[in-house]
Amino acid sequence: MDKVNFSDKFKKFDTIWTPKIVAESNGQLIKIAKGSGELEWHFHKNEDELFYVFEGELTIQLRNRDIVLSPGEMFVVPKGVEHCPKAKPNTHFMMMEPASTKHLGETESNHAISVEDQEWI
Amino acid sequence: MDKVNFSDKFKKFDTIWTPKIVAESNGQLIKIAKGSGELEWHFHKNEDELFYVFEGELTIQLRNRDIVLSPGEMFVVPKGVEHCPKAKPNTHFMMMEPASTKHLGETESNHAISVEDQEWI
Repeated sequence: MDKVNFSDKFKKFDTIWTPKIVAESNGQLIKIAKGSGELEWHFHKNEDELFYVFEGELTIQLRNRDIVLSPGEMFVVPKGVEHCPKAKPNTHFMMMEPASTKHLGETESNHAISVEDQEWI
Repeated sequence: MDKVNFSDKFKKFDTIWTPKIVAESNGQLIKIAKGSGELEWHFHKNEDELFYVFEGELTIQLRNRDIVLSPGEMFVVPKGVEHCPKAKPNTHFMMMEPASTKHLGETESNHAISVEDQEWI
């Protein structure tokens, strides 16, 4: 494996809410994504989900509070907790979660990307 | 859990090569550390180890090549691979590894911090 330069990786795609895999470590996938606007409410039954922001502002809406993440900030959504990400335009962030994690959890959604279709970049 | 602001966390300690835990996700610990100079050659038999640099420059020396990490860059040392971190003064970085990971692997060293003594910050 080579090193990962996040800035270079973000230049390779423009789509929003489409996580791209950049590394694997101990069965966890490190993914990057761009966000803008609101995604959908969902939860992951068995997986914690880590978010780290590089650029912009990502709000992790929980049912009882909002976690507002600026660049250099991180939050872990515990397994089972409902959340809905919302982002300012051109927000760049990283996620870490097990390879088994479904994009939008158990939620039925046209926006969900299947585990098999999540690609390395 | 609350969000983690890395800049704030780095203000809380000045020691070098002493990882502090800032979060846990799926059994992985997210740790931050400051580095300067060279640590020691070691390896982790069963754990991959992820490094991400915020400030300064961290070189992951491998036996056959050097991986030089600038801010915004990441590298995963696969399990079993010998490595020796080396850093410019005032280098700030993040690591991710399973809770079971020993600081300096199986190496006998006076600098090693035991798993039990690694503290949350």
